Amino acid sequence: MEYATQKLAEEKVFKDPVHRYIHVQDQLIWDLIATKEFQRLRRIKQLGTTYLVFHGAEHSRFSHSLGVYEIVRRMVDDVFVNRPEWDKSERLVALCAGLLHDLGHGPFSHAFEHVFDLDHEQFTRRIILGNTEVNEVLSRVSDQFPQKVSEVIAKTYPNKQVVSLISSQIDADRMDYLQRDAYFTGVSYGHFDMERILRVMRPQPDQIVIKSTGMHAIEDYIMSRYQMYWQVYFHPVSRSAEVILKKTLERAKFLYKDGYDFKISIDHFTSFFEGNVKLADYIALDESIIMAYFQFWTKEEDAILRDLSTRFLNRKLFKFTDVDPAKDWEKLVQLEKLFDEAGLDPNYYLVMDSSSDLPYDFYRPGEEGERVPIYLQLPNKDLSELSRSSDIVDAISGKRRTDHKLYYPKDLLDVNNPIHERIIAILDA
Amino acid sequence: MEYATQKLAEEKVFKDPVHRYIHVQDQLIWDLIATKEFQRLRRIKQLGTTYLVFHGAEHSRFSHSLGVYEIVRRMVDDVFVNRPEWDKSERLVALCAGLLHDLGHGPFSHAFEHVFDLDHEQFTRRIILGNTEVNEVLSRVSDQFPQKVSEVIAKTYPNKQVVSLISSQIDADRMDYLQRDAYFTGVSYGHFDMERILRVMRPQPDQIVIKSTGMHAIEDYIMSRYQMYWQVYFHPVSRSAEVILKKTLERAKFLYKDGYDFKISIDHFTSFFEGNVKLADYIALDESIIMAYFQFWTKEEDAILRDLSTRFLNRKLFKFTDVDPAKDWEKLVQLEKLFDEAGLDPNYYLVMDSSSDLPYDFYRPGEEGERVPIYLQLPNKDLSELSRSSDIVDAISGKRRTDHKLYYPKDLLDVNNPIHERIIAILDA
Amino acid sequence: MEYATQKLAEEKVFKDPVHRYIHVQDQLIWDLIATKEFQRLRRIKQLGTTYLVFHGAEHSRFSHSLGVYEIVRRMVDDVFVNRPEWDKSERLVALCAGLLHDLGHGPFSHAFEHVFDLDHEQFTRRIILGNTEVNEVLSRVSDQFPQKVSEVIAKTYPNKQVVSLISSQIDADRMDYLQRDAYFTGVSYGHFDMERILRVMRPQPDQIVIKSTGMHAIEDYIMSRYQMYWQVYFHPVSRSAEVILKKTLERAKFLYKDGYDFKISIDHFTSFFEGNVKLADYIALDESIIMAYFQFWTKEEDAILRDLSTRFLNRKLFKFTDVDPAKDWEKLVQLEKLFDEAGLDPNYYLVMDSSSDLPYDFYRPGEEGERVPIYLQLPNKDLSELSRSSDIVDAISGKRRTDHKLYYPKDLLDVNNPIHERIIAILDA
Amino acid sequence: MEYATQKLAEEKVFKDPVHRYIHVQDQLIWDLIATKEFQRLRRIKQLGTTYLVFHGAEHSRFSHSLGVYEIVRRMVDDVFVNRPEWDKSERLVALCAGLLHDLGHGPFSHAFEHVFDLDHEQFTRRIILGNTEVNEVLSRVSDQFPQKVSEVIAKTYPNKQVVSLISSQIDADRMDYLQRDAYFTGVSYGHFDMERILRVMRPQPDQIVIKSTGMHAIEDYIMSRYQMYWQVYFHPVSRSAEVILKKTLERAKFLYKDGYDFKISIDHFTSFFEGNVKLADYIALDESIIMAYFQFWTKEEDAILRDLSTRFLNRKLFKFTDVDPAKDWEKLVQLEKLFDEAGLDPNYYLVMDSSSDLPYDFYRPGEEGERVPIYLQLPNKDLSELSRSSDIVDAISGKRRTDHKLYYPKDLLDVNNPIHERIIAILDA
Repeated sequence: MEYATQKLAEEKVFKDPVHRYIHVQDQLIWDLIATKEFQRLRRIKQLGTTYLVFHGAEHSRFSHSLGVYEIVRRMVDDVFVNRPEWDKSERLVALCAGLLHDLGHGPFSHAFEHVFDLDHEQFTRRIILGNTEVNEVLSRVSDQFPQKVSEVIAKTYPNKQVVSLISSQIDADRMDYLQRDAYFTGVSYGHFDMERILRVMRPQPDQIVIKSTGMHAIEDYIMSRYQMYWQVYFHPVSRSAEVILKKTLERAKFLYKDGYDFKISIDHFTSFFEGNVKLADYIALDESIIMAYFQFWTKEEDAILRDLSTRFLNRKLFKFTDVDPAKDWEKLVQLEKLFDEAGLDPNYYLVMDSSSDLPYDFYRPGEEGERVPIYLQLPNKDLSELSRSSDIVDAISGKRRTDHKLYYPKDLLDVNNPIHERIIAILDA
Repeated sequence: MEYATQKLAEEKVFKDPVHRYIHVQDQLIWDLIATKEFQRLRRIKQLGTTYLVFHGAEHSRFSHSLGVYEIVRRMVDDVFVNRPEWDKSERLVALCAGLLHDLGHGPFSHAFEHVFDLDHEQFTRRIILGNTEVNEVLSRVSDQFPQKVSEVIAKTYPNKQVVSLISSQIDADRMDYLQRDAYFTGVSYGHFDMERILRVMRPQPDQIVIKSTGMHAIEDYIMSRYQMYWQVYFHPVSRSAEVILKKTLERAKFLYKDGYDFKISIDHFTSFFEGNVKLADYIALDESIIMAYFQFWTKEEDAILRDLSTRFLNRKLFKFTDVDPAKDWEKLVQLEKLFDEAGLDPNYYLVMDSSSDLPYDFYRPGEEGERVPIYLQLPNKDLSELSRSSDIVDAISGKRRTDHKLYYPKDLLDVNNPIHERIIAILDA
Repeated sequence: MEYATQKLAEEKVFKDPVHRYIHVQDQLIWDLIATKEFQRLRRIKQLGTTYLVFHGAEHSRFSHSLGVYEIVRRMVDDVFVNRPEWDKSERLVALCAGLLHDLGHGPFSHAFEHVFDLDHEQFTRRIILGNTEVNEVLSRVSDQFPQKVSEVIAKTYPNKQVVSLISSQIDADRMDYLQRDAYFTGVSYGHFDMERILRVMRPQPDQIVIKSTGMHAIEDYIMSRYQMYWQVYFHPVSRSAEVILKKTLERAKFLYKDGYDFKISIDHFTSFFEGNVKLADYIALDESIIMAYFQFWTKEEDAILRDLSTRFLNRKLFKFTDVDPAKDWEKLVQLEKLFDEAGLDPNYYLVMDSSSDLPYDFYRPGEEGERVPIYLQLPNKDLSELSRSSDIVDAISGKRRTDHKLYYPKDLLDVNNPIHERIIAILDA
Repeated sequence: MEYATQKLAEEKVFKDPVHRYIHVQDQLIWDLIATKEFQRLRRIKQLGTTYLVFHGAEHSRFSHSLGVYEIVRRMVDDVFVNRPEWDKSERLVALCAGLLHDLGHGPFSHAFEHVFDLDHEQFTRRIILGNTEVNEVLSRVSDQFPQKVSEVIAKTYPNKQVVSLISSQIDADRMDYLQRDAYFTGVSYGHFDMERILRVMRPQPDQIVIKSTGMHAIEDYIMSRYQMYWQVYFHPVSRSAEVILKKTLERAKFLYKDGYDFKISIDHFTSFFEGNVKLADYIALDESIIMAYFQFWTKEEDAILRDLSTRFLNRKLFKFTDVDPAKDWEKLVQLEKLFDEAGLDPNYYLVMDSSSDLPYDFYRPGEEGERVPIYLQLPNKDLSELSRSSDIVDAISGKRRTDHKLYYPKDLLDVNNPIHERIIAILDA
């Protein structure tokens, strides 16, 4: 029998707290889940440093990836299956793209990419197309199949309907992570009526639109996003942990470049420090490796590396204060000088962080480079962009709230030290 | 102000998916949570290898410890506070014992203790009484305070009421983990009416008893335990992962003793292999270190160490078959011989595992060495042991179901190899 | 187009708190729901007098009937559809039987049937086969169709597979009411994993069996039943309300027979008092009519009718004491005499009620006249009756707990009256 | 002991699906719940005709009233108890006002008040101050106590803090009904983090303000209100049922005034038709009486009364079309004429209904006669009105969406009748 159409003897299920069960009927999906590259996602947390604020947020990208797959499966098998606008031959590529869309994420993904100037989407592509177990499984379908899956994830696939299932303003990716992150953090937002949204989705030639009777369910979804962003994803304390994480890695890289002699060999990091990352090195670097190295570094000679890694492990975070770079410019210059004078290297101990650096965005129809906006399909079949119909969505879309914070180690500042005293006076002002 | 009675300026809360919020009012509790020994519990999963079967079960002992603390807090602050049988001066020692009861757990606790012949309760004691941040904080209350907390956890504390809050057939520990493990795995059992159980708890001179009107809520709780044990805790596939974990560690230990030359230094393990574990070594060894070493070992020369560690990381588990050691004795001997002949070392590749080895038990009133049974307080104030009043509890208590399974690497057996063929024939019989 | 296969232009849904949505695709189902006989079920509570104890239990048989339909729909459309053992031509008759199985329930069904010696199953049949809107709709399918639906509900239908979907130890009826009653009362039992149970159901020639891997889910379901019975359905206080309800109706009937002159005409009750109930009279008598008459009766001359109806409306219930008719026989005789002496007619004010009179039962395999027991299908396809495989089920099945209670109006007893004093002494003993 | 401070021997609880348990410690509260006027609320649905659209919405004002009491109890006993700004002597009057605030609601409250020009708030006052069981119980506290409770509900009580617990933009009333109505309808909005809102409430001299850190929880609550209004409370189909209900009552009143001879005496309605309602008549008229009369009226000679009452009972509702009275003025005049010509009395069969007639409103700070807006308390203790800080709230507050619908009996229009044909043409345009 052809591999593409091969079904498991009996449907398998994974118990999932968000979707109750994840259903697998295809041999291909089963085999992909068993690959070592997919299993690796168990060792990468979905929300990076957020677990240091919301202690329940210890869930991995593995769970999320299964969840995205399940939502795509429900779309194609339950909702679209009998609609003529949907091309059934795209079923398998859609399922695989949903399952594998996060495959290239590194440990503490965002901080990590930032320090080493990497792009997880590129690594997803390299894993799918490279010499990997995932590639071997996908190739059993056909020689072109890995390329097709990769294109869906890269949004270059010709059939935009398929792309939009995974990457649009209301895709399976976002619908899973909002619900999942809400479940594991325990917050009360993040809930919306996905059943209803699925029921009102209508495939169109190059996108998925929403029957206008479902507008309120979509409003609720957009609001969930909005609340999750401000309450969870942009939480200033988890950003503090991320600042320390980045600075630790930057310090290690600096020391390496500087010829510093590490006590324990830093083999796993060498190619990252050199800016010349091989695929195997990338796949090998998961969060347990990072955390192990951080433990090693708590024993290093270098005081900054030791301090920062210890802070991260033991959650001795930096405090923060709101800052407006435009207005507070002089203050910042002055603080840098004072930190230098106080022997606190400002490169590591006085850090500005802006929420707009984070990989989340609100609903912003019309901005160039943005995802396709959400269209409502009116009873007369005309399309209307969501924020034109909804007051609520209009109110929150397109507004990029500036949120700059200055992070610093308050515990190191001593009121009895005159320089520190001046620093404190400026920060508390 | 005395440290013991010092309150935070404003109550602090942790968002918790199980109890909604964890409430902290005492400076002491706040300071304990901030210690590095308590933060370390974030790096130890609550359910060991279970996440390889129930992918949601990625939660840590950190979350669970906060949950136990919160239940104890509700008992002493909301339920017992106005009952004359409860000694209010025990409040703080009870809260600390609840919070710290799992402090000494090692990575993948049960497997780890087994291989290195360690006892997590002893390490909890050593952390509380030793040269640690936790000890430093507890000692601020009084010189004797760490000792008192340690005794409650060791069940040797004179006031058995306090002990029973943490360690009895219906204690804060079990009430938290059943609900928490159910929440994170997503299974539908594990739920019971804790609100009602708290309301019907009655402190007695040396234990906590249950008002008999609450019997059905208790039955429900006992049933939850029963279902969680068979469905989650004893799940044969997570036991397969545990078997591989143990065997990997055993192989590493064997190689070390044998003078094997590890490519990457195994400093973190030396004292464990030597059977001479220092407190600092113990605290340093968390699950990220274990997982990092397992990755290192996938590159080792030794074929067994390499194979086993790779299996664990990539979830290539052993298959299993039910076995009755009494009846199948000859078969087992024969299999050992055949494995030897086939070049598969039976010490690592043919492993019997019994559920009764696991650190869970059912409700078994009356067995020596067991926890105090649950007593119902009848309207006339007489006490009646639960299984005498409840048919359901009677039905499931005291029955130790034997469950032996034989684990082996089915993927290594080749039907075309005659020895393998004989092995397969025996295993499939 | 044939009516039987006519689909709605677009699927319609009802929002349902238990199943999220009830899905309707068939014109026939849509038309049945719109009949006046089905709409009448909105005016009959699912749990009779239980709302006087669990205030949330105000839900109607209308909701429950939709729920049973939905579960049958999921069985036949999602689970059985591709199994050769299932005869697809039975789909429609199964859906209709699920929807209509409770159609003949009268107001406060059990008490009502008891007083007037009626049988709701017979009235279900009469409504389906008689001159009604429901019959008119069903007949559009075919002349024989109403008869077929009626036979499924009466359990006389030849295809026992179909019967067992609605009436067996684990049917759609029970699966809906356990979950629904738990939801509306707010109790914490009543939950079980219906998704999993549906997945492990296997149609067999004359019944539905359960794949043995689903045993624990079934145990959980049986336990839910057990807990719901003792905690909700047999609650002694809602039985007190039922006692008063029955006695009020009995008094009204007695007065009618006795030629009493009612202030407001009792037209709606005449044929019930005469024992000669016409279908139209039956359909007209819903709970709003009963409650209205009870209000009318609070203004009647007859002291007993006035007192009892006022008690019911204002929830001034009888108190109760446990009684063992075998042992307490003499006491009961004595109490009757004393009530007579005290001017409290014991026919109305001293009432024994036994839980075994209630229309619920536990799991009792093997008793004659009982529903077919639950069979597990072992891996070798043999069948094994559930209580043989499950210790828990074995423990609670077949045990008929005797629960007799004596109800009386404690508020009418005056400690200063010597006869009352003697009554109180006996009751409190 | 003084009645006001009398506690129950043991706390009593009601199981509640929304708040888990309702806790009662005061003898006074227990006695109020047992009065016949409070028990009457069991016979009045919380959401009037909404159950004809959301079948789960069969819950009563009894449940809601207990829920409001419970929220007030949590505010005063858990949250405010140790805040100096809160006057503890107001505890009891606050609890009673919360419990009794809806006491005067009539059956299908809004429609009923409209037809008979009544005001439920006035009847709440009359029940509390009149010759009732409720008044008798309240008077046990002190002669002035009923008056005080009545003033809190009437918002004329001097201490505005107390008033605002029951009647403000974020009071116990709204927090209960949003959650409760969401629970019983089963919709996915209506959820917000009440625990957090309670925690950030701060009593001020004449109102309750919100700590600004809780802004997002308040936004979520405002959004819940918004969604519940448009999705549930203003649902066009339940408004259709309400239109028919009103028109039935209007027809009965018209016939009475006209000297029509009713078959069954309409005693219960006489004083309502006369516009001269006595308290006892009001209390006697609950929804079971209304529904019983509707059944009686399905047998009346008058064709309009018969048709309308039958429609309501059997849910044969009117259809509707959107209409803009300003623009469609001529069309409406024309339709009226055509309905007259067609023999369909437009007073009963062509009805315009506007959502702004409904007793719900959005958050509208600043409009005269409106409730006090929500104030955030900034870290510097300044107050800031919510919509100034929140983009979302600003977007939806103050916008009164016009929603006019024209209801008519589509089923009575016959395409083959030329007049009907013209009507249909206009309505479909």
